[in-house]
Amino acid sequence: MADLNEAVVLGWIRRSSVGLSRVELTQTTGLSPQAISNICQRLLDEGMIMEAGKTTSGFGKPRTLLTLDPAGCYAVGVHLDPTVVIIVLLDFVGTVVARASLTTAAADPPEELVATIGRLVDGLIEEAGIDRARVLAIGIASPGPIDPVSGTVLDPPLLTNWHNVPLRDRLKAATGLPALLDKDVIAAAVAERWAGEALQSRNFAFIYLGAGIGAGLVVDDVVVRGNSANAGDIGEFEVAGPDGVGTTFLGEMANPEPILSQAVRAGVFPSAPHKDDPLAVDEHFTELCRRADAGDAPASAILDQAAVRIGRAVSSIANLLDLDTVVFGGTTWSRVADRYLPTMAGIIRAGSITRDVHPIRVVGTGLGEDVGAIGAACLVLDTLASTQPGKTLQTF
Amino acid sequence: MADLNEAVVLGWIRRSSVGLSRVELTQTTGLSPQAISNICQRLLDEGMIMEAGKTTSGFGKPRTLLTLDPAGCYAVGVHLDPTVVIIVLLDFVGTVVARASLTTAAADPPEELVATIGRLVDGLIEEAGIDRARVLAIGIASPGPIDPVSGTVLDPPLLTNWHNVPLRDRLKAATGLPALLDKDVIAAAVAERWAGEALQSRNFAFIYLGAGIGAGLVVDDVVVRGNSANAGDIGEFEVAGPDGVGTTFLGEMANPEPILSQAVRAGVFPSAPHKDDPLAVDEHFTELCRRADAGDAPASAILDQAAVRIGRAVSSIANLLDLDTVVFGGTTWSRVADRYLPTMAGIIRAGSITRDVHPIRVVGTGLGEDVGAIGAACLVLDTLASTQPGKTLQTF
Repeated sequence: MADLNEAVVLGWIRRSSVGLSRVELTQTTGLSPQAISNICQRLLDEGMIMEAGKTTSGFGKPRTLLTLDPAGCYAVGVHLDPTVVIIVLLDFVGTVVARASLTTAAADPPEELVATIGRLVDGLIEEAGIDRARVLAIGIASPGPIDPVSGTVLDPPLLTNWHNVPLRDRLKAATGLPALLDKDVIAAAVAERWAGEALQSRNFAFIYLGAGIGAGLVVDDVVVRGNSANAGDIGEFEVAGPDGVGTTFLGEMANPEPILSQAVRAGVFPSAPHKDDPLAVDEHFTELCRRADAGDAPASAILDQAAVRIGRAVSSIANLLDLDTVVFGGTTWSRVADRYLPTMAGIIRAGSITRDVHPIRVVGTGLGEDVGAIGAACLVLDTLASTQPGKTLQTF
Repeated sequence: MADLNEAVVLGWIRRSSVGLSRVELTQTTGLSPQAISNICQRLLDEGMIMEAGKTTSGFGKPRTLLTLDPAGCYAVGVHLDPTVVIIVLLDFVGTVVARASLTTAAADPPEELVATIGRLVDGLIEEAGIDRARVLAIGIASPGPIDPVSGTVLDPPLLTNWHNVPLRDRLKAATGLPALLDKDVIAAAVAERWAGEALQSRNFAFIYLGAGIGAGLVVDDVVVRGNSANAGDIGEFEVAGPDGVGTTFLGEMANPEPILSQAVRAGVFPSAPHKDDPLAVDEHFTELCRRADAGDAPASAILDQAAVRIGRAVSSIANLLDLDTVVFGGTTWSRVADRYLPTMAGIIRAGSITRDVHPIRVVGTGLGEDVGAIGAACLVLDTLASTQPGKTLQTF
């Protein structure tokens, strides 16, 4: 691992889109010109950064721009979801150089899944043809609650077979690579911060729509983890119930499984799969979205109502934290984006307490289904290159 | 203003309950022993810190403990509320050395109120018999939305006469003292962090109950301000309506004015004061609380329902941010505390997603009605003494 000054220098270079000169690094970091010169030389020698052209600004001689070397290091990101495992290999500048995904059944024993993930990780590194010594670590994004200190998946409601699984250490043992564990929604927010829709934002939420709903938060440029690193649960926000009768939990209106129960009650389907079969739930949810898009009125009404409920809850979060950006994504996002986004964006913008002070951007992710896996890999890169090295997760 | 290293040294000394030795300061700040020695000598010479006994730990010679000198500097805190203005003079260790309060009517023109506040501030400093040169600045806590950069109170819903009032600069002009402006709920949270119930917490919310409801947040030890420093609005959280019929905004269930409308509908009062008369609303609310405490069933039911709605919304916030502590307070708190706290604490604890991971403390403020004013003064002290000097509000 790099020392703190190296991490800060790499962090600022990583954050810059065109690279930074040594003079700019001196100004930005507050380190002495001599220190910057030494650190940059070391990083050049190690192949972590490279010289990328000259810049001329104002008077004075042209300055050499330093950028990250894409091949300087790599990170693996693993996103564990109730219906799918996505694995990416990211280079130092955040490009996905290899990718694998695996449809899972909830009944799969965790031990077998970990062994399969380990083989896929090894396969990706081999396929990419890179030096394994340049792979920093594996980042794992998991549904909460988790314990990032011990690297344990505690008891996620939708992963019925997972109870106190030491996922981080098992994957370390399976691959020989260091690993860290963080919550899926936090990883997704970190991906948006480095490679996505929130590059310019210091106050944003990533709203994750999958088998469950969650929020990854960045406030005042700091990734929010909270007391036990389990921040981001929003499934129990209070919202109006179906057809406005009574109130219920947001998860009951937003998550595929209870939405399918509504669809059964509305006569769209004769029956719905059991909640312990998330893959069947996911397939039925796809069919519900298909029917709504084809004009089925009850199916449309159910999904439109979900969008209103989610929009209301996210509006509350935006006001609580005075956000400037909301990004939506997750494993079901591509199926609902066109229907949900206009409704939710309207509610969030109209409900903004600060609408006369600043606008609020509401967008869908540009990173697709891989956002959680990319974020998990970004968490690994953060340990080496971060403008706030004290704020990164350091629990290999 | 002190330089950054001095601010950090003062910040760590301020945070310690018994004082710190030079050796401890070296370890905590990462500054060199020589730098610590120089800074401490300068601060001793200036009367900002003092030597307060010796400590012996393990082997080695006894170390001199350094503490803040209470008379080293002072700060004024002004809390502007729709029904009352509270002004405190705080010494360097956070003790209230003088205090004034002023019942206000919403119809008072802001210009007159600012002039009155200015005279009261001058009077407090004189009354305390302190050196005016030792008064750092005035901190002002105001309902939002505000613009802390220009020091303007924008358009608070319950301060009907206040529109784009440059309160900070007017109070500067009236007193000749520097001033800063922040949101009331944020100031209250800062008070709890330095002098109240959240000394040990890095993740807490202060829930403010007054003419309106709001939340001051500290997440991962950082005071949350958000994009335009207007974080903390929770009045538009969705909650179940009266008697569970439909849904409404939290403010409609929690704020005195709409609660009085419910009381009129329930036959407790024949009529309620107009919402533009917050003082009359406040007096009626006191009467409602008195009747409920005397056993009036409809009055009790209305207040009990408010407690449930607030508890549910705060439970959502606690899960969103993975909080370990919730502190309640505000101008109406003393009237409802005994009734609300057990109900709310039960809901928040039972609803915690992380209840098997860590407990969550739910308490009332120990700072009474002055919490906003004390916090406003603490914001001023933060500019001089902070363990995170980059994170303090610097908008004099």
